[in-house]
Amino acid sequence: MTTETLLIDSALRNWKLNIDRTDKFFTPLSEQQLVEEIAPGKNRLIYLWGHLTAVNDALLPLLGLGERLHPELDAMFVTNPDRSVATISGVALKRLWDEINGTLWTKFSALSGSDWLKKHSSVSEEDFAREPHRNRFTILLGRTSHIAYHFGQAKLAERR
Amino acid sequence: MTTETLLIDSALRNWKLNIDRTDKFFTPLSEQQLVEEIAPGKNRLIYLWGHLTAVNDALLPLLGLGERLHPELDAMFVTNPDRSVATISGVALKRLWDEINGTLWTKFSALSGSDWLKKHSSVSEEDFAREPHRNRFTILLGRTSHIAYHFGQAKLAERR
Repeated sequence: MTTETLLIDSALRNWKLNIDRTDKFFTPLSEQQLVEEIAPGKNRLIYLWGHLTAVNDALLPLLGLGERLHPELDAMFVTNPDRSVATISGVALKRLWDEINGTLWTKFSALSGSDWLKKHSSVSEEDFAREPHRNRFTILLGRTSHIAYHFGQAKLAERR
Repeated sequence: MTTETLLIDSALRNWKLNIDRTDKFFTPLSEQQLVEEIAPGKNRLIYLWGHLTAVNDALLPLLGLGERLHPELDAMFVTNPDRSVATISGVALKRLWDEINGTLWTKFSALSGSDWLKKHSSVSEEDFAREPHRNRFTILLGRTSHIAYHFGQAKLAERR
């Protein structure tokens, strides 16, 4: 593998590791456990899981990899606070989570180093010319941190 | 910048962003606020901050960049659970946090793409030959996720 390929391999492994540990945490939870709060007065587990699912789904257009698969998740888990609108069940969410992450993984795996360095869709050509770090790879790393951020919160709900 | 340089630039920016937002969160807190728990029965804020400081310090030998600056932090924030041993003050911790992160940043900034792909110090030559992803870059990305993980937890202590 070239230097470039190895650097991307590390980033994809870190993405996958965060997806997998998050999946392993949420998947075995019952519907009852999923509506528990991570801490008193804080978001419920289902909200964190749905939030990660919706934000990952939004990576498809942001990275120029296709249309969103489930934009309907935003009203439940992004634009409205927890408990303000009805959400889908954990079983239904797990199906979408798997579908979205599977699609992302297939598309991620096909990108070369120069593909990863192309601009993302929320930056203009002019701004990108001045700020070449506003590329897809930076988004991938940022969204990996985003998963870890909320996974850390979800883990607080354990052993209560 | 070359493809390789741009990929590393993205990773360093993501590291720095996570250090900076964590710093901005903890630095203004009073000693009294720092000994508050992030959620009832969970670790105190000072413990999370000290834990991140100690784990970042351990990156120096792990990445082959030098000796640890403050190995004494481990007994307070890594090997023993919170509240089992006395810890240093927030003011003292902030000084070490800045020293360690400043040192890491200087050393990180001097590494090339091929430097980042060298093995880290906890993997043998034989294992590394089979598993070239066990390199410094993978460690950098993993430790960035580690910061985000605990920063997400610390943020739960806000607005209580």
